[in-house]
Amino acid sequence: MILADLNGRVITQWSTQFTDKQRMPKAVCSLMHDGLKVMCQEGSTSLKKVLHITAGAPGITNVDSGVVLSAPNLKDWDDVPLRTMIEKEMGITTVVENDTNLAAVGEHWRGSAAGVEDFVFIALGTGVGAGIFLRDKLHHGANWSAGEIGYMGVGGSARTGLQVRATGQLERAIGGLGIEKEWQRLLQRDKRSHEAALMKLRAPEIFDLAVDGDRLAGEVVLYTAQILVNCISDLALALDPEVVILGGGVGSHSELCRVTEKLLQRNEFARPLVRSSSLGTQAQLHGAISVSLAATESTLLA
Amino acid sequence: MILADLNGRVITQWSTQFTDKQRMPKAVCSLMHDGLKVMCQEGSTSLKKVLHITAGAPGITNVDSGVVLSAPNLKDWDDVPLRTMIEKEMGITTVVENDTNLAAVGEHWRGSAAGVEDFVFIALGTGVGAGIFLRDKLHHGANWSAGEIGYMGVGGSARTGLQVRATGQLERAIGGLGIEKEWQRLLQRDKRSHEAALMKLRAPEIFDLAVDGDRLAGEVVLYTAQILVNCISDLALALDPEVVILGGGVGSHSELCRVTEKLLQRNEFARPLVRSSSLGTQAQLHGAISVSLAATESTLLA
Repeated sequence: MILADLNGRVITQWSTQFTDKQRMPKAVCSLMHDGLKVMCQEGSTSLKKVLHITAGAPGITNVDSGVVLSAPNLKDWDDVPLRTMIEKEMGITTVVENDTNLAAVGEHWRGSAAGVEDFVFIALGTGVGAGIFLRDKLHHGANWSAGEIGYMGVGGSARTGLQVRATGQLERAIGGLGIEKEWQRLLQRDKRSHEAALMKLRAPEIFDLAVDGDRLAGEVVLYTAQILVNCISDLALALDPEVVILGGGVGSHSELCRVTEKLLQRNEFARPLVRSSSLGTQAQLHGAISVSLAATESTLLA
Repeated sequence: MILADLNGRVITQWSTQFTDKQRMPKAVCSLMHDGLKVMCQEGSTSLKKVLHITAGAPGITNVDSGVVLSAPNLKDWDDVPLRTMIEKEMGITTVVENDTNLAAVGEHWRGSAAGVEDFVFIALGTGVGAGIFLRDKLHHGANWSAGEIGYMGVGGSARTGLQVRATGQLERAIGGLGIEKEWQRLLQRDKRSHEAALMKLRAPEIFDLAVDGDRLAGEVVLYTAQILVNCISDLALALDPEVVILGGGVGSHSELCRVTEKLLQRNEFARPLVRSSSLGTQAQLHGAISVSLAATESTLLA
């Protein structure tokens, strides 16, 4: 969580670890309340002075009604009226928006997409998703599910059907776990799977190894970039964005960006600029500040 | 070509067959001039009374400058200043727009997409392309190439790289020729390739046979619909349109629409409504009327 003033300046931040029980909607609201109190204290302000909250939800979200329609990667997060719940818990006007969309807003406001009208923000982390900006505005779609690219097909692999409850094909391939699986497969292939420390590496650490010249790790970067380029090409053919921003805990790694951009240059067209997220995992927090500022301004002007 | 009055009513139409020589930009302009004269005569009006022309180009088109940037399926159609050429030839203010985009405008104005804010119009004919409407407006993209879906990947097939000069992967699979190739392959498989009349069938005729209960033709419809559903699913995941309109000489066949819609229902989400184009091959002509009316109105009001 992040607390900002009316100029959009960050006052303080707060974060916590969830237990599985705390992941339920009601518990999350209560945790957020705790966090807000801590931040107010740290920022020498009071809860009463907080004008607006913007919350990011890891699922398909109806922004008009403030309801999280479905969150495939979380249990018990279907049709959750999160906005009403937060407003009841804290008594502060709230907007709820999809977390990847918020990250795209952040990048557009003060990140790698500043001044760009048409761009696609792709987040690679545990999940894979996109926030799509067209003509200077977030594109939500007819059912609030625009940007759910984690379910897109993977070039060269047969599609096994789309299922909203399971992880999607693209997400299985190049979400953090998919990348780590490919790394473990290559270690096994090269009879190095007994090296326990290597087997446990997380995706960004594997990418770091590739920068250091590790051949096997380089193969993993190439594997990820190839699948990503296939997806970016399809998106670019449909939408023709000016820029694609790679973000998220895994996606914002500079080595992935470098190799992805290089591979994309093979396209004769449908080759948008590729940039790493400049806000990294903080992108959605800055997006939330931007949304809250806009909402507060329109209230003050009304 | 179509001649319409200021109420958008069709006065008369004209069409011609091209020889290969006549496909060159200059010859096309001259042919259009001939056609316009014929239509004026038939419509008991004069060339001087024609206020505006909208021309559809089968390639990536910069609408602002009126230049056809590239037309992969035509020779000598790169960087052609078509608007200036037509205006010089006929002395009438002109707009040049991609032909599939014009068809989407037509369907939105008086066809299957009337009143729909977010939709994707997919044209299957010799080529495969899309016109994308978002928030009630045609989406052109940063380089005027939005909707070039003929180059998208085909689920289950390895991608061989994007090439703007060659036909795209999706177009090779389910453009008219691709569908006919699959039909011929099945006839060969079933040792019926000596039946010359069958071997020569065009895609819409094969679909007609499927309606009559021909098992082999039914397989071809299924082949086409499966690849199409894969593409529609990816587009729907990214854009979440309310409706997908199937158009073009091959795509507007009702049997293809029926099977495509049925397969798409397997998706738990990313399953927009599917409708056949109601304007068929006339969609782009009606789109052109709509664009010319809007341009004329804004001139008269200026």
